[in-house]
Order: sequence, then C-alpha cells, then structure tokens
Amino acid sequence: MSAHLPTVSLIGAGPGDPELLTLKAVKALGRADVVLVDDLVNPEILQHCPHARVVHVGKRGGCRSTPQEFIQRLMLRYARQGLRVARLKGGDPCIFGRGGEEAQWLSDHGVACDIVNGITAGLAAATSAGIPLTQRGMAQGVTLITAHSQDGATPDWSGLARSGTTLVVYMGVAKVHDMRSQLLAAGMAPDTPVAMIERASLPGQRVCASTLTAMAADAQAFRLRSPAVLVIGDVAACRMFGVLDGAAGATIPQRRMA
Amino acid sequence: MSAHLPTVSLIGAGPGDPELLTLKAVKALGRADVVLVDDLVNPEILQHCPHARVVHVGKRGGCRSTPQEFIQRLMLRYARQGLRVARLKGGDPCIFGRGGEEAQWLSDHGVACDIVNGITAGLAAATSAGIPLTQRGMAQGVTLITAHSQDGATPDWSGLARSGTTLVVYMGVAKVHDMRSQLLAAGMAPDTPVAMIERASLPGQRVCASTLTAMAADAQAFRLRSPAVLVIGDVAACRMFGVLDGAAGATIPQRRMA
Repeated sequence: MSAHLPTVSLIGAGPGDPELLTLKAVKALGRADVVLVDDLVNPEILQHCPHARVVHVGKRGGCRSTPQEFIQRLMLRYARQGLRVARLKGGDPCIFGRGGEEAQWLSDHGVACDIVNGITAGLAAATSAGIPLTQRGMAQGVTLITAHSQDGATPDWSGLARSGTTLVVYMGVAKVHDMRSQLLAAGMAPDTPVAMIERASLPGQRVCASTLTAMAADAQAFRLRSPAVLVIGDVAACRMFGVLDGAAGATIPQRRMA
Repeated sequence: MSAHLPTVSLIGAGPGDPELLTLKAVKALGRADVVLVDDLVNPEILQHCPHARVVHVGKRGGCRSTPQEFIQRLMLRYARQGLRVARLKGGDPCIFGRGGEEAQWLSDHGVACDIVNGITAGLAAATSAGIPLTQRGMAQGVTLITAHSQDGATPDWSGLARSGTTLVVYMGVAKVHDMRSQLLAAGMAPDTPVAMIERASLPGQRVCASTLTAMAADAQAFRLRSPAVLVIGDVAACRMFGVLDGAAGATIPQRRMA
C-alpha cells in the first residue's frame, strides 16, 4: 500500500453510546474531510468531526434509503478527489456491516481501506443488560448471527442449537417466529432463557426477558422494535451486573432468573 | 444500586493497540484511585491513569500468577476503603474474561459493578489481518470459542462445524492438534482456510495462513506463540483490506487465497 494511494477509513461507531467509540475512531474522524454516516449511528458522534462535510447515507431495513452501489461510488469519488474519506458505520464494520465488501470493491477500484474496529452491538447489548455471554458452566462461547440473511441463506439452526454457545441474533425482530420454530425443531429446550434488548447502550434501552417458547408472543406484547438484539441461552437469565444508567429494566415477568 | 455503595469498574482494555481503548474506558481510568491490571494489558494504556496506584495481577496460562480469589479479595478490600477501583482486563471483560464471575462475586459481597466493553481480541485480530468475519456468501455469522475450557467441558465441535459460522478460537495454541482432529472428525473440509494471528493489533503481529489439515504442522513451523487467535472458515483465506501498519504479513505460503 503506497502512501500516495487514495484511502478510505471504514470506522465502527459502536453500539450507540457515544462513549463506546475508540480513540482510534476519534482520531480518524478528526482528520477526515468528508464523513459518510449510516442511519444507526448516534449523531452525537459527529462532534468529533466538526470541520468535515457530513453526508448521511442510510440503509435502514424496509425504508427508502441510499443504495449500496451509490454509497460506494460516492466514497470512490471523494477519495479520488484527494479527500480524506471516513465511512462511519454502526457497531463494527466487519460484523454484519458489509465492511469486507466495501473494502474489496474500493480495492478493486484502486482505493485502499483502513478499518477501525467498533464495539459490536451484540456484545454491548448483553453487557448493558447485565448478561455475561461466555459465563463458565453456562456457555462454551458465543455465536453472533443474523436472522435476516442478505444472501438468502439461512443459518444451520440445528448446528447452532447443538453448539453449546450463547446465540446473539442481530436484526432478528421480524424473524422471531421463524427462529423460535427452527430452534424448537432443532431440539433446543423450550424454557431456554431469551433476552431481547432494544436500543442497546442508549438511554432508552429496554430489555424483554422471555424464553424460547414464549419469545414471539412476548416480543409482540412488549412491542419490540428494531434495532434490537436477541440473546438466546442460559446466560440470558442472568443479571449479573448493573444495567445501564438510566436504562429501563425488564418489564415482562422474568420466568427463570439465575 | 445506591450511589453510596462501593463500586468497581471492570474495564476492557481491548486487544493491545492502545488506540483501541474506548472513551468510556479512558474516563473510568482517569477517575480511578487504584487500578488492578491483567498480564495481557498493554502498559501504554496506563498513561490514562497517571495518578492511580497500579497493581499488577496476572493470570497468564501456565505461569505462576495471582490467584483469582486473591484478586477478587483485593478489589473488595479497596472498594470497602471507599477507593474508586478499576480492574483492567485484556479485550472485553465478558468475552472469556470472567467479568461475569467477578461481578457476581463482588455483588454477593455488597459491591456493585460497572462493566465497560472493550474490543475483543478475536474481532480485532481478524480485522488487522484483513479478514471479514461475516462476509456474505462465505459465513452465516461468527462463533467465538475457547479451546481451553476452564470448566473442563469441550465445545460441541460437530455442531460448530455444521453451523456455517466462522470459528474464532481464543487461547488455542496448545490445543491446535486436538481442534484439528475434532473438526476433521466432525466433517469439516480438510482444505478449510485457517489464519493464526499472534499478537493481534500490536506492531509485532504475525499471521500464519494455513488450512484445517495443515494447521498443527504449520503452527509448529511458524513457532506460533500465545497470545494468538485462530480464525477457521472460508473467510480466513481473504485479505480484503490492509494489514495493520507495521505488522508483518503472512510468512507461510498461502494455499488458498480469495
């Protein structure tokens, strides 16, 4: 990579709480000439690039938004003008953030990419709800998946159910019924604890505590809205540390608490 | 949680690169009176707590180190003296960091815990090696596991092999032979790409590109040392974006590159 190549920084903005931004992200934003911002990024984060031109490019599921191809061409155009381009994405650019695809496309067009990790929403959601994702004796690890596969493929729910890992599902609100059916069919225990976390790490955070068998009905009763993260596994019944300051706790009766 | 309860902050120090610390962690360190630091934490991070008393408490696998019980009692003692206690852990406190256990134990002793997320080593390792963990068409998600289970249980390798997710293995260096055998026995393709990343996100980072069938021999030839992260799955063959500035690239012939 030559120092003279145009470059773009793909920056993880973290889960929402502006304090969960990394120092590296702050630095990259501070030297950017133009910042392309996704929908789910907290506007408070833009305080770190007061002099940059800010372009809002959203792709929120189901809404009219800026197409992926257009965003990529925009980054390319700015980079070729010699501008320092930052692309600010919610969470981590490479955890369901299409960071790899954008980097590959830019590279194919002669633009190098630098990726700055962010705190991914799933891990922050669990922490701010007091859930220890890899607690010894309860989980062998943690699997981050999306229920809403963009390439049409579906996860192997049976393999996941057997894996012994805590499942953390991104973009799962519209697929709660499907997931419930698939995981029950795969032999996961009906009383497996589930926590559904809306607006993770933000002041309006809400946590709906449920179980595998009840999750669809509970999500409806709770009026669970995107963006939300679902945690499925024994650890979801834990509230081992304080919930986020100012966040609402669980408001659905908790069926199986540790 | 009353404002008068003694409290402890469990803080994720991130993967190594001091710039991958969050603003929230910097703030928590800045107000701490005493900081208990794990082995794998980069000492440069301590610049953020110049006035705090720093206590090094290590637990590096296989070496003599400060026992867990002692660390917990130390945190409790300082907290009960009314000091603002920060416990600085590598990566994220709740991803194989025992954050949940420490928080639970402190809570049982009347001390509240606040947990500050950090960038977990597995995600940073992949990013700094140019690997997009959840690339569409290649992976359904990502599973973070440890090969060195502290409670003696072993992961269900068969379920994991079938899950369609990229596997990211922490603390796996000593278990490379076992993992290889188990995943081959579970039906994972012998030519499945593997990347073994030593000192992730630090200037001395090294990446060993291999395959499932060759990983044990390659790790030995490469003299792979802890701490290292193993990435197993099709995405491990990608180098989609620039590797870390100053980091050495792969030095083992890459058998199957995207």
